Amino acid sequence: MTSKMPQNAKRVFKGRIFEVWQWEQKMFDGSVEVFEKLKRPNTAQVIPVVGDKILIQIEEQPQRKQSFPSIPGGRFDEGEEPLQAAKRELLEETGYVSSDWILWKEVDPLFKIEWTVYTFIARNCIFEKEAETDAGEKIETRLVRFEEFMKIATEDPSFYSPEIVPDLLRLQFNPEKKEEFRKLLFEEK
Amino acid sequence: MTSKMPQNAKRVFKGRIFEVWQWEQKMFDGSVEVFEKLKRPNTAQVIPVVGDKILIQIEEQPQRKQSFPSIPGGRFDEGEEPLQAAKRELLEETGYVSSDWILWKEVDPLFKIEWTVYTFIARNCIFEKEAETDAGEKIETRLVRFEEFMKIATEDPSFYSPEIVPDLLRLQFNPEKKEEFRKLLFEEK
Repeated sequence: MTSKMPQNAKRVFKGRIFEVWQWEQKMFDGSVEVFEKLKRPNTAQVIPVVGDKILIQIEEQPQRKQSFPSIPGGRFDEGEEPLQAAKRELLEETGYVSSDWILWKEVDPLFKIEWTVYTFIARNCIFEKEAETDAGEKIETRLVRFEEFMKIATEDPSFYSPEIVPDLLRLQFNPEKKEEFRKLLFEEK
Repeated sequence: MTSKMPQNAKRVFKGRIFEVWQWEQKMFDGSVEVFEKLKRPNTAQVIPVVGDKILIQIEEQPQRKQSFPSIPGGRFDEGEEPLQAAKRELLEETGYVSSDWILWKEVDPLFKIEWTVYTFIARNCIFEKEAETDAGEKIETRLVRFEEFMKIATEDPSFYSPEIVPDLLRLQFNPEKKEEFRKLLFEEK
Protein backbone atom coordinates (compact mmCIF):
# COMPACT_ATOMS: atom_id res chain seq x y z
CA MET A 1 0.00 0.00 0.00
CA THR A 2 1.34 3.39 -0.92
CA SER A 3 -0.04 6.60 0.56
CA LYS A 4 1.35 9.15 -1.91
CA MET A 5 -0.61 12.38 -2.29
CA PRO A 6 -2.12 13.09 -5.77
CA GLN A 7 -0.20 15.74 -7.72
CA ASN A 8 -3.12 18.17 -7.86
CA ALA A 9 -3.63 18.15 -4.08
CA LYS A 10 -3.38 21.48 -2.24
CA ARG A 11 -2.63 22.07 1.41
CA VAL A 12 -5.60 23.59 3.24
CA PHE A 13 -4.23 23.47 6.81
CA LYS A 14 -0.88 23.07 8.51
CA GLY A 15 -0.84 22.07 12.18
CA ARG A 16 2.07 21.16 14.42
CA ILE A 17 2.29 17.57 13.19
CA PHE A 18 -0.47 17.09 10.65
CA GLU A 19 -1.21 18.84 7.38
CA VAL A 20 -4.60 18.53 5.66
CA TRP A 21 -4.64 18.37 1.84
CA GLN A 22 -7.56 18.35 -0.58
CA TRP A 23 -8.05 17.85 -4.31
CA GLU A 24 -10.78 17.54 -6.90
CA GLN A 25 -11.23 13.89 -7.73
CA LYS A 26 -12.93 12.69 -10.89
CA MET A 27 -15.36 9.92 -9.97
CA PHE A 28 -16.25 6.81 -11.95
CA ASP A 29 -19.38 8.49 -13.39
CA GLY A 30 -17.46 11.61 -14.49
CA SER A 31 -18.65 13.82 -11.62
CA VAL A 32 -16.12 15.61 -9.39
CA GLU A 33 -15.79 15.51 -5.60
CA VAL A 34 -13.36 17.04 -3.13
CA PHE A 35 -11.18 14.33 -1.57
CA GLU A 36 -9.10 14.78 1.56
CA LYS A 37 -5.91 13.27 2.86
CA LEU A 38 -3.32 14.05 5.53
CA LYS A 39 0.41 14.41 5.54
CA ARG A 40 2.67 13.99 8.54
CA PRO A 41 6.41 13.60 9.05
CA ASN A 42 7.64 10.07 8.47
CA THR A 43 8.70 7.91 11.39
CA ALA A 44 11.96 6.03 11.96
CA GLN A 45 12.09 3.27 14.54
CA VAL A 46 14.92 1.00 15.54
CA ILE A 47 15.41 -2.56 16.78
CA PRO A 48 18.73 -2.03 18.62
CA VAL A 49 20.94 -5.06 19.21
CA VAL A 50 23.26 -4.80 22.21
CA GLY A 51 25.48 -7.86 22.60
CA ASP A 52 23.17 -10.88 22.68
CA LYS A 53 20.15 -8.78 23.72
CA ILE A 54 17.60 -6.43 22.18
CA LEU A 55 16.99 -3.04 23.70
CA ILE A 56 13.36 -2.17 24.38
CA GLN A 57 11.91 0.85 26.12
CA ILE A 58 9.29 1.23 28.79
CA GLU A 59 7.89 4.62 27.95
CA GLU A 60 5.67 7.15 29.67
CA GLN A 61 4.10 10.16 28.00
CA PRO A 62 2.36 13.06 29.77
CA GLN A 63 -1.03 12.53 28.10
CA ARG A 64 -1.13 8.75 28.51
CA LYS A 65 -2.16 7.12 31.75
CA GLN A 66 -0.11 3.94 31.47
CA SER A 67 3.44 3.15 30.50
CA PHE A 68 3.96 0.96 27.46
CA PRO A 69 6.75 -1.08 25.87
CA SER A 70 8.17 0.21 22.60
CA ILE A 71 11.28 0.37 20.49
CA PRO A 72 13.24 3.63 20.07
CA GLY A 73 11.98 5.96 17.36
CA GLY A 74 10.13 9.09 16.42
CA ARG A 75 9.25 11.64 13.78
CA PHE A 76 11.77 12.82 11.19
CA ASP A 77 13.08 16.32 11.71
CA GLU A 78 12.66 18.69 8.74
CA GLY A 79 14.79 17.53 5.80
CA GLU A 80 16.07 14.34 7.44
CA GLU A 81 16.71 11.11 5.56
CA PRO A 82 15.38 7.83 7.06
CA LEU A 83 18.73 6.50 8.33
CA GLN A 84 19.71 9.89 9.71
CA ALA A 85 16.45 10.10 11.68
CA ALA A 86 16.91 6.54 12.97
CA LYS A 87 20.46 7.28 14.19
CA ARG A 88 19.38 10.51 15.89
CA GLU A 89 16.37 8.93 17.63
CA LEU A 90 18.43 5.97 18.86
CA LEU A 91 21.11 8.24 20.29
CA GLU A 92 18.69 10.74 21.86
CA GLU A 93 16.43 8.13 23.43
CA THR A 94 18.96 5.52 24.49
CA GLY A 95 22.50 6.95 24.20
CA TYR A 96 23.53 4.07 21.91
CA VAL A 97 25.19 4.25 18.47
CA SER A 98 25.82 1.67 15.75
CA SER A 99 27.81 1.55 12.54
CA ASP A 100 25.93 -1.51 11.25
CA TRP A 101 22.42 -0.63 10.05
CA ILE A 102 19.83 -2.57 8.05
CA LEU A 103 16.54 -1.13 6.75
CA TRP A 104 14.22 -3.99 7.68
CA LYS A 105 10.69 -2.76 6.83
CA GLU A 106 9.00 0.19 5.18
CA VAL A 107 5.26 0.50 5.86
CA ASP A 108 2.62 3.10 4.95
CA PRO A 109 0.13 2.38 7.74
CA LEU A 110 -2.91 4.19 6.33
CA PHE A 111 -4.06 5.05 2.85
CA LYS A 112 -5.48 8.39 4.02
CA ILE A 113 -2.21 9.65 5.50
CA GLU A 114 0.93 10.27 3.48
CA TRP A 115 3.20 8.74 6.09
CA THR A 116 5.89 6.07 5.97
CA VAL A 117 7.25 4.16 8.96
CA TYR A 118 10.82 2.90 8.48
CA THR A 119 11.98 0.13 10.80
CA PHE A 120 15.73 -0.32 11.05
CA ILE A 121 17.87 -2.94 12.73
CA ALA A 122 20.91 -1.41 14.47
CA ARG A 123 23.40 -4.24 14.94
CA ASN A 124 26.23 -4.24 17.47
CA CYS A 125 25.15 -1.12 19.33
CA ILE A 126 27.64 0.60 21.62
CA PHE A 127 26.78 2.90 24.49
CA GLU A 128 28.11 6.38 23.78
CA LYS A 129 26.55 8.81 26.26
CA GLU A 130 23.57 9.50 28.49
CA ALA A 131 20.20 9.64 26.71
CA GLU A 132 18.69 13.09 26.12
CA THR A 133 14.95 12.54 26.35
CA ASP A 134 12.85 15.70 26.17
CA ALA A 135 10.33 16.96 28.73
CA GLY A 136 7.57 14.98 27.00
CA GLU A 137 9.20 11.58 27.47
CA LYS A 138 10.11 9.34 30.38
CA ILE A 139 11.96 6.38 29.00
CA GLU A 140 13.35 3.41 30.84
CA THR A 141 15.66 1.15 28.84
CA ARG A 142 15.65 -2.63 29.19
CA LEU A 143 17.78 -5.32 27.53
CA VAL A 144 15.84 -8.49 26.77
CA ARG A 145 16.57 -11.81 25.09
CA PHE A 146 15.35 -12.45 21.55
CA GLU A 147 12.46 -14.71 22.63
CA GLU A 148 11.28 -12.18 25.18
CA PHE A 149 11.33 -9.42 22.59
CA MET A 150 9.26 -11.53 20.20
CA LYS A 151 6.78 -12.32 22.97
CA ILE A 152 6.35 -8.71 24.10
CA ALA A 153 6.01 -7.42 20.54
CA THR A 154 3.40 -9.98 19.50
CA GLU A 155 1.47 -10.57 22.74
CA ASP A 156 1.44 -7.31 24.72
CA PRO A 157 -1.49 -5.28 23.34
CA SER A 158 0.13 -2.05 24.57
CA PHE A 159 3.33 -2.61 22.52
CA TYR A 160 3.65 0.63 20.61
CA SER A 161 4.94 -0.29 17.17
CA PRO A 162 1.82 -1.74 15.54
CA GLU A 163 3.43 -1.48 12.08
CA ILE A 164 5.76 -4.43 12.67
CA VAL A 165 3.39 -6.69 14.64
CA PRO A 166 1.92 -8.63 11.67
CA ASP A 167 5.41 -9.41 10.36
CA LEU A 168 6.68 -10.47 13.78
CA LEU A 169 3.57 -12.64 14.23
CA ARG A 170 4.31 -14.38 10.93
CA LEU A 171 7.86 -15.05 12.17
CA GLN A 172 6.56 -16.46 15.45
CA PHE A 173 4.84 -19.21 13.50
CA ASN A 174 7.54 -19.92 10.95
CA PRO A 175 10.60 -21.39 12.72
CA GLU A 176 12.80 -21.18 9.63
CA LYS A 177 12.10 -17.50 8.88
CA LYS A 178 12.33 -16.72 12.57
CA GLU A 179 15.81 -18.22 12.74
CA GLU A 180 16.80 -16.14 9.69
CA PHE A 181 15.58 -13.04 11.50
CA ARG A 182 17.51 -13.99 14.65
CA LYS A 183 20.66 -14.40 12.57
CA LEU A 184 20.05 -11.07 10.88
CA LEU A 185 20.07 -9.45 14.30
CA PHE A 186 22.90 -11.30 16.01
CA GLU A 187 25.25 -13.09 13.65
CA GLU A 188 28.30 -11.90 11.76
CA LYS A 189 27.52 -11.15 8.11
CA MET B 1 -5.00 1.46 23.36
CA THR B 2 -7.56 4.23 23.65
CA SER B 3 -7.39 7.36 21.53
CA LYS B 4 -9.75 9.64 23.50
CA MET B 5 -9.14 13.38 23.15
CA PRO B 6 -8.14 15.25 26.35
CA GLN B 7 -10.97 17.32 27.81
CA ASN B 8 -9.17 20.66 27.35
CA ALA B 9 -8.55 20.07 23.63
CA LYS B 10 -9.94 22.64 21.17
CA ARG B 11 -10.70 22.15 17.52
CA VAL B 12 -8.45 24.30 15.30
CA PHE B 13 -9.53 22.97 11.89
CA LYS B 14 -12.44 21.03 10.43
CA GLY B 15 -11.96 19.38 7.04
CA ARG B 16 -14.24 17.04 5.13
CA ILE B 17 -13.16 13.95 7.05
CA PHE B 18 -10.53 15.03 9.52
CA GLU B 19 -10.60 17.54 12.36
CA VAL B 20 -7.41 18.86 13.97
CA TRP B 21 -7.46 19.45 17.73
CA GLN B 22 -4.84 21.02 20.01
CA TRP B 23 -4.33 21.46 23.73
CA GLU B 24 -1.80 22.71 26.24
CA GLN B 25 -0.07 19.73 27.75
CA LYS B 26 1.84 19.90 31.02
CA MET B 27 5.16 18.12 30.58
CA PHE B 28 7.07 16.02 33.11
CA ASP B 29 9.27 18.99 34.05
CA GLY B 30 6.28 21.32 34.60
CA SER B 31 6.68 23.21 31.30
CA VAL B 32 3.78 23.45 28.86
CA GLU B 33 3.65 22.49 25.19
CA VAL B 34 0.93 22.48 22.55
CA PHE B 35 -0.03 18.92 21.63
CA GLU B 36 -2.00 17.93 18.57
CA LYS B 37 -4.33 15.13 17.70
CA LEU B 38 -6.93 14.34 15.03
CA LYS B 39 -10.52 13.28 15.11
CA ARG B 40 -12.33 11.47 12.33
CA PRO B 41 -15.67 9.63 12.05
CA ASN B 42 -15.52 6.07 13.37
CA THR B 43 -15.57 3.15 10.97
CA ALA B 44 -17.87 0.12 10.93
CA GLN B 45 -16.87 -2.94 8.95
CA VAL B 46 -18.61 -6.26 8.53
CA ILE B 47 -17.70 -9.91 8.04
CA PRO B 48 -20.89 -11.02 6.26
CA VAL B 49 -21.80 -14.71 6.37
CA VAL B 50 -23.93 -15.94 3.48
CA GLY B 51 -24.86 -19.60 3.80
CA ASP B 52 -21.58 -21.51 4.21
CA LYS B 53 -19.51 -18.70 2.65
CA ILE B 54 -18.08 -15.31 3.59
CA LEU B 55 -18.73 -12.30 1.41
CA ILE B 56 -15.66 -10.31 0.44
CA GLN B 57 -15.37 -7.37 -1.91
CA ILE B 58 -12.97 -6.59 -4.70
CA GLU B 59 -12.96 -2.83 -4.62
CA GLU B 60 -11.80 -0.04 -6.90
CA GLN B 61 -11.52 3.61 -5.91
CA PRO B 62 -10.92 6.53 -8.28
CA GLN B 63 -7.66 7.65 -6.68
CA ARG B 64 -6.13 4.16 -6.33
CA LYS B 65 -4.44 2.43 -9.21
CA GLN B 66 -5.16 -1.16 -8.24
CA SER B 67 -8.20 -3.01 -7.00
CA PHE B 68 -7.98 -4.58 -3.56
CA PRO B 69 -9.89 -7.16 -1.48
CA SER B 70 -11.79 -5.86 1.53
CA ILE B 71 -14.83 -6.46 3.67
CA PRO B 72 -17.87 -4.13 3.51
CA GLY B 73 -17.68 -1.03 5.66
CA GLY B 74 -17.14 2.69 5.89
CA ARG B 75 -17.40 5.85 7.94
CA PHE B 76 -20.27 6.50 10.33
CA ASP B 77 -22.77 9.10 9.18
CA GLU B 78 -23.37 11.98 11.61
CA GLY B 79 -25.02 10.71 14.80
CA GLU B 80 -24.95 7.02 13.88
CA GLU B 81 -24.42 4.22 16.37
CA PRO B 82 -21.92 1.46 15.51
CA LEU B 83 -24.48 -1.27 14.65
CA GLN B 84 -26.59 1.19 12.67
CA ALA B 85 -23.57 2.20 10.57
CA ALA B 86 -22.62 -1.45 10.03
CA LYS B 87 -26.13 -2.35 8.82
CA ARG B 88 -26.28 0.64 6.48
CA GLU B 89 -22.83 -0.02 4.95
CA LEU B 90 -23.60 -3.72 4.43
CA LEU B 91 -26.89 -2.94 2.69
CA GLU B 92 -25.49 -0.08 0.57
CA GLU B 93 -22.37 -1.91 -0.54
CA THR B 94 -23.72 -5.43 -0.97
CA GLY B 95 -27.53 -5.38 -0.83
CA TYR B 96 -27.51 -7.93 2.03
CA VAL B 97 -29.24 -7.71 5.42
CA SER B 98 -28.95 -9.74 8.61
CA SER B 99 -30.87 -9.95 11.87
CA ASP B 100 -28.06 -11.78 13.67
CA TRP B 101 -25.19 -9.44 14.53
CA ILE B 102 -22.12 -9.84 16.77
CA LEU B 103 -19.67 -7.05 17.63
CA TRP B 104 -16.41 -8.97 17.19
CA LYS B 105 -13.62 -6.36 17.63
CA GLU B 106 -13.22 -2.73 18.61
CA VAL B 107 -9.86 -1.20 17.73
CA ASP B 108 -8.40 2.32 18.01
CA PRO B 109 -5.71 2.03 15.32
CA LEU B 110 -3.62 5.09 16.23
CA PHE B 111 -3.01 6.97 19.42
CA LYS B 112 -2.90 10.30 17.56
CA ILE B 113 -6.34 9.95 15.99
CA GLU B 114 -9.55 9.74 17.98
CA TRP B 115 -10.99 6.99 15.81
CA THR B 116 -12.50 3.60 16.56
CA VAL B 117 -12.93 0.77 14.04
CA TYR B 118 -15.80 -1.60 14.92
CA THR B 119 -15.76 -5.00 13.24
CA PHE B 120 -19.05 -6.86 13.23
CA ILE B 121 -20.01 -10.36 12.18
CA ALA B 122 -23.31 -10.45 10.29
CA ARG B 123 -24.55 -14.04 10.50
CA ASN B 124 -27.09 -15.60 8.11
CA CYS B 125 -27.17 -12.72 5.63
CA ILE B 126 -30.03 -12.57 3.15
CA PHE B 127 -29.97 -10.72 -0.15
CA GLU B 128 -32.54 -7.93 -0.09
CA LYS B 129 -31.90 -5.63 -3.06
CA GLU B 130 -29.31 -4.33 -5.49
CA ALA B 131 -26.31 -2.61 -3.91
CA GLU B 132 -26.21 1.21 -4.08
CA THR B 133 -22.54 2.05 -4.34
CA ASP B 134 -21.77 5.72 -4.88
CA ALA B 135 -19.80 7.29 -7.72
CA GLY B 136 -16.57 6.88 -5.74
CA GLU B 137 -16.78 3.08 -5.46
CA LYS B 138 -16.71 0.15 -7.85
CA ILE B 139 -17.36 -2.94 -5.82
CA GLU B 140 -17.48 -6.52 -6.99
CA THR B 141 -18.86 -9.03 -4.49
CA ARG B 142 -17.43 -12.52 -4.09
CA LEU B 143 -18.46 -15.43 -1.85
CA VAL B 144 -15.50 -17.43 -0.54
CA ARG B 145 -15.02 -20.38 1.77
CA PHE B 146 -13.79 -19.80 5.34
CA GLU B 147 -10.22 -20.99 4.60
CA GLU B 148 -9.97 -18.78 1.55
CA PHE B 149 -11.15 -15.77 3.55
CA MET B 150 -8.52 -16.45 6.23
CA LYS B 151 -5.83 -16.78 3.57
CA ILE B 152 -6.73 -13.57 1.73
CA ALA B 153 -7.02 -11.56 4.94
CA THR B 154 -3.69 -12.71 6.38
CA GLU B 155 -1.56 -13.17 3.25
CA ASP B 156 -2.66 -10.61 0.67
CA PRO B 157 -0.76 -7.40 1.51
CA SER B 158 -3.40 -5.32 -0.27
CA PHE B 159 -6.26 -6.60 1.96
CA TYR B 160 -7.82 -3.40 3.21
CA SER B 161 -8.82 -4.03 6.81
CA PRO B 162 -5.46 -3.87 8.57
CA GLU B 163 -7.16 -3.55 11.98
CA ILE B 164 -8.22 -7.20 12.07
CA VAL B 165 -5.11 -8.76 10.48
CA PRO B 166 -3.13 -9.39 13.72
CA ASP B 167 -6.13 -11.14 15.30
CA LEU B 168 -6.78 -13.26 12.21
CA LEU B 169 -3.06 -14.14 12.08
CA ARG B 170 -3.23 -15.35 15.70
CA LEU B 171 -6.23 -17.52 14.75
CA GLN B 172 -4.38 -18.97 11.76
CA PHE B 173 -1.83 -20.40 14.15
CA ASN B 174 -4.19 -21.55 16.89
CA PRO B 175 -6.41 -24.40 15.57
CA GLU B 176 -8.65 -24.41 18.63
CA LYS B 177 -9.39 -20.66 18.61
CA LYS B 178 -9.75 -20.76 14.84
CA GLU B 179 -12.41 -23.46 15.11
CA GLU B 180 -14.21 -21.34 17.74
CA PHE B 181 -14.16 -18.42 15.30
CA ARG B 182 -15.47 -20.62 12.47
CA LYS B 183 -18.33 -21.76 14.72
CA LEU B 184 -19.08 -18.18 15.70
CA LEU B 185 -19.54 -17.40 12.00
CA PHE B 186 -21.42 -20.47 10.82
CA GLU B 187 -23.04 -22.49 13.59
CA GLU B 188 -26.39 -22.16 15.34
CA LYS B 189 -26.09 -20.47 18.70
